[in-house]
Amino acid sequence: MARSLPHPVALRALVERFGGVVQPEGADPPIVRLAPLASARSGDLSFLAAPRHRASAGGTHASAVIVSAELSPALAPDVVRVVVDDPLAHFGRVARWFEHVMEGDAPQPGIDPSASVSPRAVLGAGVRIGAHCVIEDGVVVGDDCSIGAHTTLARGVRVGAASVVHANVSVYRDCTLGARCIVHSGTVIGSDGFGFAREHGRWSKIPQLGTVVIGDDVEIGANCAIDRGALEDTVIGDGCKLDNLIQIAHNVRIGEHSALAGCVGVAGSAVIGRRCMIGGGAGILGHLEICDDVVVSAMSLVTRSISEPGFYSGVFPLMPNARWERSATIVRRLPELRDRVRTLEQAVRGAPMDSSDEQGED
Amino acid sequence: MARSLPHPVALRALVERFGGVVQPEGADPPIVRLAPLASARSGDLSFLAAPRHRASAGGTHASAVIVSAELSPALAPDVVRVVVDDPLAHFGRVARWFEHVMEGDAPQPGIDPSASVSPRAVLGAGVRIGAHCVIEDGVVVGDDCSIGAHTTLARGVRVGAASVVHANVSVYRDCTLGARCIVHSGTVIGSDGFGFAREHGRWSKIPQLGTVVIGDDVEIGANCAIDRGALEDTVIGDGCKLDNLIQIAHNVRIGEHSALAGCVGVAGSAVIGRRCMIGGGAGILGHLEICDDVVVSAMSLVTRSISEPGFYSGVFPLMPNARWERSATIVRRLPELRDRVRTLEQAVRGAPMDSSDEQGED
Amino acid sequence: MARSLPHPVALRALVERFGGVVQPEGADPPIVRLAPLASARSGDLSFLAAPRHRASAGGTHASAVIVSAELSPALAPDVVRVVVDDPLAHFGRVARWFEHVMEGDAPQPGIDPSASVSPRAVLGAGVRIGAHCVIEDGVVVGDDCSIGAHTTLARGVRVGAASVVHANVSVYRDCTLGARCIVHSGTVIGSDGFGFAREHGRWSKIPQLGTVVIGDDVEIGANCAIDRGALEDTVIGDGCKLDNLIQIAHNVRIGEHSALAGCVGVAGSAVIGRRCMIGGGAGILGHLEICDDVVVSAMSLVTRSISEPGFYSGVFPLMPNARWERSATIVRRLPELRDRVRTLEQAVRGAPMDSSDEQGED
Repeated sequence: MARSLPHPVALRALVERFGGVVQPEGADPPIVRLAPLASARSGDLSFLAAPRHRASAGGTHASAVIVSAELSPALAPDVVRVVVDDPLAHFGRVARWFEHVMEGDAPQPGIDPSASVSPRAVLGAGVRIGAHCVIEDGVVVGDDCSIGAHTTLARGVRVGAASVVHANVSVYRDCTLGARCIVHSGTVIGSDGFGFAREHGRWSKIPQLGTVVIGDDVEIGANCAIDRGALEDTVIGDGCKLDNLIQIAHNVRIGEHSALAGCVGVAGSAVIGRRCMIGGGAGILGHLEICDDVVVSAMSLVTRSISEPGFYSGVFPLMPNARWERSATIVRRLPELRDRVRTLEQAVRGAPMDSSDEQGED
Repeated sequence: MARSLPHPVALRALVERFGGVVQPEGADPPIVRLAPLASARSGDLSFLAAPRHRASAGGTHASAVIVSAELSPALAPDVVRVVVDDPLAHFGRVARWFEHVMEGDAPQPGIDPSASVSPRAVLGAGVRIGAHCVIEDGVVVGDDCSIGAHTTLARGVRVGAASVVHANVSVYRDCTLGARCIVHSGTVIGSDGFGFAREHGRWSKIPQLGTVVIGDDVEIGANCAIDRGALEDTVIGDGCKLDNLIQIAHNVRIGEHSALAGCVGVAGSAVIGRRCMIGGGAGILGHLEICDDVVVSAMSLVTRSISEPGFYSGVFPLMPNARWERSATIVRRLPELRDRVRTLEQAVRGAPMDSSDEQGED
Repeated sequence: MARSLPHPVALRALVERFGGVVQPEGADPPIVRLAPLASARSGDLSFLAAPRHRASAGGTHASAVIVSAELSPALAPDVVRVVVDDPLAHFGRVARWFEHVMEGDAPQPGIDPSASVSPRAVLGAGVRIGAHCVIEDGVVVGDDCSIGAHTTLARGVRVGAASVVHANVSVYRDCTLGARCIVHSGTVIGSDGFGFAREHGRWSKIPQLGTVVIGDDVEIGANCAIDRGALEDTVIGDGCKLDNLIQIAHNVRIGEHSALAGCVGVAGSAVIGRRCMIGGGAGILGHLEICDDVVVSAMSLVTRSISEPGFYSGVFPLMPNARWERSATIVRRLPELRDRVRTLEQAVRGAPMDSSDEQGED
């Protein structure tokens, strides 16, 4: 559960700081915690941002709810509201302030004595280096960064100001992170791309001489793997958000402000545009290009370039297993099924074969 | 290969300890090792628990075999059997005893001098803290726990008694593990959920203020990522077993005794019931609910709530690639194919359109 | 970007070392860097190995290009070529030499003072042990190995000569790596297999007493998980290449020189042959066997044994989401659709039902 503030804050103080219109006017309950509608109690501030939460809105015991004018009627009449244009974004700003207040006991800047920091590394002001960190020669860490315990920044790595690298992260030599990045535990940045030449049935390694370049304001989740480029760099644009367990292969380029959900795999040299959203577990084959503003649904496989913005899917529908087995059997025999339909059409009305059948694309 | 015991043990001693009926009566071969039927030699104890292993059963050279009365005939007449109700569970108990005997050389309790342990952490009796561990302020580790090398327990983490956290695990602040849990290397518990608000095409972070609460007797495999909740907690019930490389997003709740195979991804706020089994690589979308006793086959995507116990699948059948290409082309044009069938029906017998076609659900 | 050599090298010197025919004869530009065709500048050596890069070949500014006689015409007439049989393999050899020259500043052999190395471990000549490594009792590390920071080699682990284990790798007790292996950060080798017996709706653990045996010349990417066997060993054959985030379950056996792309999951006791190639995100179910020389396309699920070499696929085709929804609805109702076609056939020409419909297999 979210922790409570050490001392309550007046709702009015929050509204003065973050905006919004309080209804009924003048209401000013003390707020000690943030909570979801369903479990909120007296003293909690909650929010209603999506129609799907309407159900839990009616009976909430929150002392106040951040809501849009549109969804406001879903709340009981006597509930105090803070009416705003974008409840989720507004709640996010409030929550960041709560987090900041509660982090009063956060670790202070400084270098843990157990860390191994090269004298040839450059650390900015206000930097925190956690226990057992390894900071090698030529590393540059910007002001106000926090590097978690057991994290390794290899030779020549650069981290921009105010970035947070959590515990147990491995960054290989010469890779670059921008400013205000967040990297979660277990993530590996700059491992060798999967590059081999096949000779006489054996694989010989192609050295991976590029690096990884990560822009500003990028967040990368836990246990991701982002490979260095073969000759050029693997590039992740400003503002991208990657969830957990994501694979980014060598030479991939991802445009600004794209978001990849958990377990996505992107193969070598794929290019993803700006503001794309890739659903969880989706796969993107190599050497193809996805334009800006494309949405790919969860667990779809992108097998060719996409040049039109839009929402794309490719998933076999879930069904009871017995039914799946029957459908799967027929799917295997679809070419025959189509041929039978054509024959019938001709028998019934000598219809010409529908040439569109030959089009593999939509 | 499984190692051998330092000294042989009499089969009778194992039967006295763990039960079962020896056939032929009085047979008492010395046992030094556990081995599968196919590779077992004299001195080995094996087991036959699944019909699919019948084939290798006939010719086994094991000195004794744990088997059910039902499968016993699959063994050669002269093979010594230990007949039990549940051969696999029985074998598991025997194997745990073997493991215990062989672990005589296991590391002793105590704190490795290279570990960084906060004076404000509380360690129970018989606790082992491995090399270079980081145990921060306010951590509580129960009696008889073993914490592997390089593992980080951040501020306020609690680990129940007799739990084993292997090397290189990262547990973020305030997360809780129950008693007798096992967590394998590389796993991350409590990383931030994937929560962002989109404003003007950019993402702003929603702080993740909840934690992760893991019940008793939970095992979590290697390189999993379990995110903390946004406001409430991510909850994994007692007795759950998670394999490797599993993604659990924020606010997910998993009921008691469910098992998730490798590479499963569960999206935010999904609820999974008790005793469910989720096949490897399956995906579960967010904000849906799966009832108790549901089995989902490997690599299926659960796109809506499931309210009936049962076995569900959604996977495109594997076929030679040339055939797949033909089938895939037709799958893209299925709506047209169905329309052609309807037209034919009407031409042949003016049949009314089968309204069931309009039902998307089963 | 790939770094430049400290000093230029004459193209002729590279040709003398690695072979190839320079055209025009006698051309000998100085080379300082390796670069792809599209971004190459004067002083860069590039290569053209795949027809798909023809487009960028025509306008390259590289000082020289490694190319086959067949693709040579794709380059502008005045570009200096090094004509070879296998441009990719040839380029790989040149790149390894570049890498070697540039690694002049690589870390020297020796044991970092912050490492925890058991006096009962055996380290070969020229071994490098990184900061904070943990090398437990009975470990044997061959000559010229490099073990990265924070890596843990548990009791009894053996690593063959000239292997490179990068930072933050966890190898559980008694596992074995061959010679000249490369293991990338975050990978876990030897974690417990997912073995449980179900009793009365609860899971009891089956100890995993086997180990992991990895052959020579194996490369394993970042954040993989390779479980130890239950009784026998999990085996990865000589020359296998595994990409990132791959799951290998207990008792799996992979034949020599097979390659698995990122995010592949292989379930327990599966056997994969020699020289197989498994596409990214593919899944292989347990207790089945894939013969030599099989190629499985990305994100396919192998649900049964494959006994014929060849290329297999099982992926639902990607389409615009609206169209996918219509197709998915019909896929669920395919058994009805097939029945309607049969009825029509009989109505039209009393055709006998196509018995091939009953064949689930191809």
